[in-house]
Amino acid sequence: MRYRVNAGVQRIVPPPIATIKDWVVPPLDDRPVIDLAQAVPSHPPAAALSAYLGEVLLAGDLHLYTDILGAPSLRGAYARHLSDHYAGTVEASEVAITAGCNMAFCTALMTLAQPGDEVVLATPHYFNHRMWLDMLGVRAVPLPVAEDGLPSVDRAAGLVSERTKACVLVTPNNPTGAIYPPFIIDAFFDLCQEEGIALVLDETYKDFLPHDGPPHALLGRPDWQDTLIHLYSFSKAYALAGFRVGAIAASESFLDQAEKVMDTTLIAAPAIAQEAAWWALDHLQGWKRDRRDDLGRRLAAFRSAMAAPDLAYTIASAGAYFAYVKHPFEGIGADQVVRHLAQDHGLSCLPGTAFGPGQGQYLRLAFANVPEARMAEIADRLIASQAALGLEG
Amino acid sequence: MRYRVNAGVQRIVPPPIATIKDWVVPPLDDRPVIDLAQAVPSHPPAAALSAYLGEVLLAGDLHLYTDILGAPSLRGAYARHLSDHYAGTVEASEVAITAGCNMAFCTALMTLAQPGDEVVLATPHYFNHRMWLDMLGVRAVPLPVAEDGLPSVDRAAGLVSERTKACVLVTPNNPTGAIYPPFIIDAFFDLCQEEGIALVLDETYKDFLPHDGPPHALLGRPDWQDTLIHLYSFSKAYALAGFRVGAIAASESFLDQAEKVMDTTLIAAPAIAQEAAWWALDHLQGWKRDRRDDLGRRLAAFRSAMAAPDLAYTIASAGAYFAYVKHPFEGIGADQVVRHLAQDHGLSCLPGTAFGPGQGQYLRLAFANVPEARMAEIADRLIASQAALGLEG
Repeated sequence: MRYRVNAGVQRIVPPPIATIKDWVVPPLDDRPVIDLAQAVPSHPPAAALSAYLGEVLLAGDLHLYTDILGAPSLRGAYARHLSDHYAGTVEASEVAITAGCNMAFCTALMTLAQPGDEVVLATPHYFNHRMWLDMLGVRAVPLPVAEDGLPSVDRAAGLVSERTKACVLVTPNNPTGAIYPPFIIDAFFDLCQEEGIALVLDETYKDFLPHDGPPHALLGRPDWQDTLIHLYSFSKAYALAGFRVGAIAASESFLDQAEKVMDTTLIAAPAIAQEAAWWALDHLQGWKRDRRDDLGRRLAAFRSAMAAPDLAYTIASAGAYFAYVKHPFEGIGADQVVRHLAQDHGLSCLPGTAFGPGQGQYLRLAFANVPEARMAEIADRLIASQAALGLEG
Repeated sequence: MRYRVNAGVQRIVPPPIATIKDWVVPPLDDRPVIDLAQAVPSHPPAAALSAYLGEVLLAGDLHLYTDILGAPSLRGAYARHLSDHYAGTVEASEVAITAGCNMAFCTALMTLAQPGDEVVLATPHYFNHRMWLDMLGVRAVPLPVAEDGLPSVDRAAGLVSERTKACVLVTPNNPTGAIYPPFIIDAFFDLCQEEGIALVLDETYKDFLPHDGPPHALLGRPDWQDTLIHLYSFSKAYALAGFRVGAIAASESFLDQAEKVMDTTLIAAPAIAQEAAWWALDHLQGWKRDRRDDLGRRLAAFRSAMAAPDLAYTIASAGAYFAYVKHPFEGIGADQVVRHLAQDHGLSCLPGTAFGPGQGQYLRLAFANVPEARMAEIADRLIASQAALGLEG
């Protein structure tokens, strides 16, 4: 091309998933590749949901745009779901339906922040969050979390400036798997409220918490709309990643502004994806809990496998889809470890370096896609890597 | 809310479609509302396509993400379609699949321009184009078109500065309906090539040209990738608006950069929408031409109705989905005319003021949704408005 592109976009390092896929070569022996890289449900959606969508395709209005903020039926159903799940009060008018949670984040942050503004981002962070802030020219201020994956509100308070527009938390966390306890989420809400900034809370993985109760009490506060911008994705809970449907819950006056961004970018989330999410909320709560329980068993099997006596890799934190694992090698970066695991052991995962500065000692393992019976193989392959990478036995 | 939002987003005037919908009250007599406001196919997709999608839902991988730049099958099919239709050469690697043409525009412009840059925009313009540039902090430099809706390349040349990153053309045009002749499109390509800027060409309505031949010869140039960024939507031709699928054709090195924006915002276009577009390209070319021919008859009927002797509204330009109509009232703005037509005559359309400065004398009438037999009613209602708005008979 003879034209120049946006230097800000050009500077951004591409996401690592595609690169890592290229590293994985079919193993020479008969061992299949174990994919711990991408966080997508490996199972299909409920068969009844697919059948239902097939009927609606023939009879419905799925070829038309919905309202910009989403189909009223889904906005209402999701508002009721949030109100029930969090023992709080969310109105349909406080919900916007997006094409997945990345679009929810992009919409929310563009509505909040302009070039030169700052956003406090618990780090390690989800790489697309950081990329979007970089693309907007908004400064991401990293809030390093402790070894257990939990962020400190006192540390966050020291990072808020005149230019800060929001603080971003993800729980259960991507990449660390850490589940933030309610008192931490509460304290961040109080801080943000006091500072007059938004708390952007991404709960894409909320359906995979080990218990049924609400993960926090924020939506029960009478003034949650003053401070909270809540993000969600229907992709993980209902295996709808390829359909693209997520949501924002926030004050109506915020959504009035967000609506302009939504109209300009996507116009409206795909109608069939909205129909799927609406049907799922009403019919698939039991199905979803079964998936959650299955994931819980996978996590237990993964933890048990990682307790193998010869294994020098250790779990720093784990929950929902992810484990954040510390590798045992000194002077070897996570990128090199990941490359070696992919090429020599058919094990694909992401390096901590994809998730922010100072993460060279960590790997993200999306164990959610691996059946219980194969968790031991992960440990075996990690053990096999130790000698090859120079760790003494 | 207690937090502050992006002042740049707050300043943007919301799109007028929702406002105008509120104006239209069910008429007191039995005349149904005639909707000339939104440009969405009023007919459903081909029944065979809906049936096909129902089968794939049960058997396929539609719940998974495709590649960020789109499913290889669709990228290949669309590249072949472009190569055939334009008698040119487009490779699958030069195609990116987006969730509709708004996302194609947003992705392309964010990849090109950063805050402070300038983009030359033929005006009147599609309002979402202007809104996106405003949101990016990119200055839209209006290039006023002539009364026939055609832009002047000499005038454009005078608007290009050191900060200019692109020139944007839409043909067939939204809102004017003007179809740019090949020599104008060619001249803009030459100008952009010489200036080292991108020509962003949005051909969302290309399938509704009155002839079968290519609308221009740009894709036949051996160096089209150096300068051209081509945008398209599958929404209009195949009645897939609610599915969200469109495309960018551009150089591979540009798409390498655009891929970062796509991964961050949407991850990938909906898999089922991509499947629909792929199937449509292979099976629905005759179906699409029938819709095009039907639209041609509607345009002829509309022109004929607008030739009513008592009618003082005149067509400035028309083609594909739209007519840009000059209203006859002096000292009355387009907004007031539109409001009157909606409230007193059950006729909904958009004011020229939605499409840029200096457009107060114009209305956009999306006649595409109105059956031939009802075009005379449009003229009748416009005539009825004349006396009410003070035009002497």
